Amino acid sequence: MDEAAKKTALRMIPYGLYVVGTKDTDGRVNAFAANWLTQASFAPPLVVLGAKAGTDSSDMIGRSGLFCVNVLETGSKDLASKFFAKVEAQDGKFGDVAFTLSPNGCPVLDDGIAYFECRVTDTITRGDHTIYVGEVVEAEVKRDVEPMTLAETGFKYGG
Amino acid sequence: MDEAAKKTALRMIPYGLYVVGTKDTDGRVNAFAANWLTQASFAPPLVVLGAKAGTDSSDMIGRSGLFCVNVLETGSKDLASKFFAKVEAQDGKFGDVAFTLSPNGCPVLDDGIAYFECRVTDTITRGDHTIYVGEVVEAEVKRDVEPMTLAETGFKYGG
Repeated sequence: MDEAAKKTALRMIPYGLYVVGTKDTDGRVNAFAANWLTQASFAPPLVVLGAKAGTDSSDMIGRSGLFCVNVLETGSKDLASKFFAKVEAQDGKFGDVAFTLSPNGCPVLDDGIAYFECRVTDTITRGDHTIYVGEVVEAEVKRDVEPMTLAETGFKYGG
Repeated sequence: MDEAAKKTALRMIPYGLYVVGTKDTDGRVNAFAANWLTQASFAPPLVVLGAKAGTDSSDMIGRSGLFCVNVLETGSKDLASKFFAKVEAQDGKFGDVAFTLSPNGCPVLDDGIAYFECRVTDTITRGDHTIYVGEVVEAEVKRDVEPMTLAETGFKYGG
């Protein structure tokens, strides 16, 4: 296989850029930026998330079986960037980013425009990212406006 | 769960719009339009495809364990639309859309800008779409230009 072609071709897949919240079995919460996400069924409503394997957040999804996708508004590059590195929750905030808890206890960012919370139905541990299939169990739209795309940020994560 | 919120939130996920080619174990080929696709690992390079369950094409992927994602150039709405309904391959064409065969025998559209061919590693049959995890085994970029997004077509497939 032509590695350069593989990289270029895979980078042609358009993405959003989300902040995914999760919780641990003891109630601790965490959040990280992610873009490898797609819907994968209408009924039941399933999504698939690729989350870097071996991170705290990914392990927490594995233990609690829950994750919550926060959709950000176009132009929220700075907000998303705060979740590239490890964050710590304190007093309802990750740094200066406020959140509340979803019905199942995952962090929902105040500045997100929508979220959907998923309960993991299947897990595939084959590559450097764990593939979580989740059934959407809760959803809320705060503002029905244009979501952010990965392309607009200039960031690339793929290839 | 608020069904309307679920639909609106899930439709905020940005997508491309691809023509996915596949083959059967007897060498017959087929192709269909799809947008539920994401990368899911760098090493090995994995992608995840959600393909409507019970269709000829999806069954062919199941049998051959192969699919090939044709990336289309921005503005290729009409080309993609030809693959919403069932197509038939004859003399190296689906209707008036010419193709050649990938190294593993899947159809590669002449008018695509890139393709990546995947060998199925895992299959999840839980919803109305089958989730195929595929390892990228071949790739080619014909023209490194802007790929088409689902948003630009005005089509919606999600929610």
